[in-house]
Amino acid sequence: MNYPNINETHRIETGQLDMPPRLLLGPGPSNTHPRVQQAIATHEVGHLDPAFIGVMNDIQEMLRYAWQTDNSFTLPVSGTGSAAMEATLANLVEPGDVVLVGVMGYFGERLVDMAGRYGADVQTLEKPWGDVFTLAEIRAGLERHKPAILALVHAETSTGALQPMEGIGELCREHNCLLLLDTVTSLGTTPVFLDGWGVDVAYSCSQKGLSCPPGASPFTLSERALDKLHGRKTKVANWYLDMSLLSKYWDGQTRSYHHTAPINMMYALREGLRVVVEEGLDARWSRHQANAQLFWNGLAEMGLSCHVTEPSLRIPALTTVRVPDGVDAKIVAGRLLNEYNIEIAGGFGQLAGQVWRVGLMRFNSRPENVTLLLAALAEVLG
Amino acid sequence: MNYPNINETHRIETGQLDMPPRLLLGPGPSNTHPRVQQAIATHEVGHLDPAFIGVMNDIQEMLRYAWQTDNSFTLPVSGTGSAAMEATLANLVEPGDVVLVGVMGYFGERLVDMAGRYGADVQTLEKPWGDVFTLAEIRAGLERHKPAILALVHAETSTGALQPMEGIGELCREHNCLLLLDTVTSLGTTPVFLDGWGVDVAYSCSQKGLSCPPGASPFTLSERALDKLHGRKTKVANWYLDMSLLSKYWDGQTRSYHHTAPINMMYALREGLRVVVEEGLDARWSRHQANAQLFWNGLAEMGLSCHVTEPSLRIPALTTVRVPDGVDAKIVAGRLLNEYNIEIAGGFGQLAGQVWRVGLMRFNSRPENVTLLLAALAEVLG
Repeated sequence: MNYPNINETHRIETGQLDMPPRLLLGPGPSNTHPRVQQAIATHEVGHLDPAFIGVMNDIQEMLRYAWQTDNSFTLPVSGTGSAAMEATLANLVEPGDVVLVGVMGYFGERLVDMAGRYGADVQTLEKPWGDVFTLAEIRAGLERHKPAILALVHAETSTGALQPMEGIGELCREHNCLLLLDTVTSLGTTPVFLDGWGVDVAYSCSQKGLSCPPGASPFTLSERALDKLHGRKTKVANWYLDMSLLSKYWDGQTRSYHHTAPINMMYALREGLRVVVEEGLDARWSRHQANAQLFWNGLAEMGLSCHVTEPSLRIPALTTVRVPDGVDAKIVAGRLLNEYNIEIAGGFGQLAGQVWRVGLMRFNSRPENVTLLLAALAEVLG
Repeated sequence: MNYPNINETHRIETGQLDMPPRLLLGPGPSNTHPRVQQAIATHEVGHLDPAFIGVMNDIQEMLRYAWQTDNSFTLPVSGTGSAAMEATLANLVEPGDVVLVGVMGYFGERLVDMAGRYGADVQTLEKPWGDVFTLAEIRAGLERHKPAILALVHAETSTGALQPMEGIGELCREHNCLLLLDTVTSLGTTPVFLDGWGVDVAYSCSQKGLSCPPGASPFTLSERALDKLHGRKTKVANWYLDMSLLSKYWDGQTRSYHHTAPINMMYALREGLRVVVEEGLDARWSRHQANAQLFWNGLAEMGLSCHVTEPSLRIPALTTVRVPDGVDAKIVAGRLLNEYNIEIAGGFGQLAGQVWRVGLMRFNSRPENVTLLLAALAEVLG
């Protein structure tokens, strides 16, 4: 012993990692695509290696395709979706800015919490969980609050509702405000046209539509948003997510060190995006819609209903199923997990105990998974 | 085509991921342990799955061993080391708090930048890059500035210098201040005794001493630090890193959702820590010291010298080698990369062009790597 004072209390014995074979049909993470699972185990290179720069370029360009944007400023944040969410507000909010948040579920509430931490004068539009906003409601909100930023959630994972986006970007330009959009559950599963919709700031995650594990999260800024970032009077109040620093690493010309990028997560993200590019957005969106429809039909046959009644306002990748009267939502989800290795999630907040949340996304959006889940659900419900 | 307006501009064709076989002997990332590389590709379970909770518990307990602490509040942050660094200041600094930072290299400078963003009254002690602080200097600083927090870097990756820690914790208690320590390059490679040294707040990373890729970063708080967190008058000005929220997910009792943990990075971290636990800290620290000594001996034989002249003040895992007069540091590093697939790094800041930074850490701390690097360096230097 060269070091006699070592405390051995916490030197536990553990077995080899051994995870149950779950079919992940909750709100995410969803099962990773097999090709991504191979890519993530690729041997590392340094985060400043010329070979890694090609990986970065590929990710940035394929993210533009997936999001349907020409934004030069498009990159993955080194954290999970919540970090990318926070990055939008951290970079664009200066103390005192009015931020108007459309709250129709949990993720709207979280935007309110985050914006407040960056000193925003936060105002809200509110809807019961499961509803969406009309264009008239948004116009009225913009007229009343005159915000610097309007923040909306495209696909509200806590409720299953999909916010229609037509016309909102034009309203934001009329009112000289930036449009910030959460595309966490929509990117890669549902039509998203960032540029077509006039979105200025968006974020997403890797573990839902993009076929990857969680840990690297898409982020993008339009030229209008960059103008606001570059015109800041105060430092971004968050070093790790400061895009004025981070952009020097992701910029094609400089590639100067900010923090060590999560190399293997970037390998995974590149492969997940390759899968999206190869399938093509048209085929991918159509597949998610078709398998969702298959699931909705099966639910109807079993006498179960969707929380979002209007099918065109449902997120194809994430369905909220109403829990029938007299059924304990948690017991059903627990039995699916323990007896069938299928993970689905319950509701929370306004929907606690009232819904199950079922994800059919990316690699898991396949007819056989619909068949299995419906059959297992029928057995458990008896 | 169901969606006729898709922009195909960014739909690029890419090849299968194909990375060169680099030997990573820079400041990190270092090559991942082969067992970690297998673990990271394990199929996912949900972040609230009962099976994942065992993974979380294992990580927390083995981190306590690696850090030599009994701190109950010990967990990995879902980001790279910089995120864990920021988490320490975000949670413990309230606007107006005096934070005294010992700056003896780049990472001290970064602590200054970060602390300022959280409203600290930042004061500094400064040393040329490559030096360390004496106990008398630290005592004088505490007496003069009366800080709420003293922040030091244990192993300054930008300079190769290792700060002796004996006596500092006692001084901080005498002056009623918290001791914050950067152990990014020391954890898992060099003796670190958090509790023995009276450290209250520490952070590290996964891609240096712990045999993992970057992306999940150790963080710990003592009871004294927790008291400061719980006594805050203001919200933590960072949602993603807010430990008062995050602790509810990592707490053994509640495990309630905060954000989606990077599952595969946690698999990797668990396996990396298992490797540490199996080898044992005594053997691991001795191995790093022995291979560093082998390298230092070889350098001396070649007529090369270390930037940190006193061997006991050198970081065993990271040596700064003086660039001989008339030699272009960048050309040498470039040739090592391109002709030998060996990555080493240059110096920056005060040491730009003056040193190479050579990492012999974790799996890469092996005699054959010392032999190869010395031989390659001899060939390149001619």
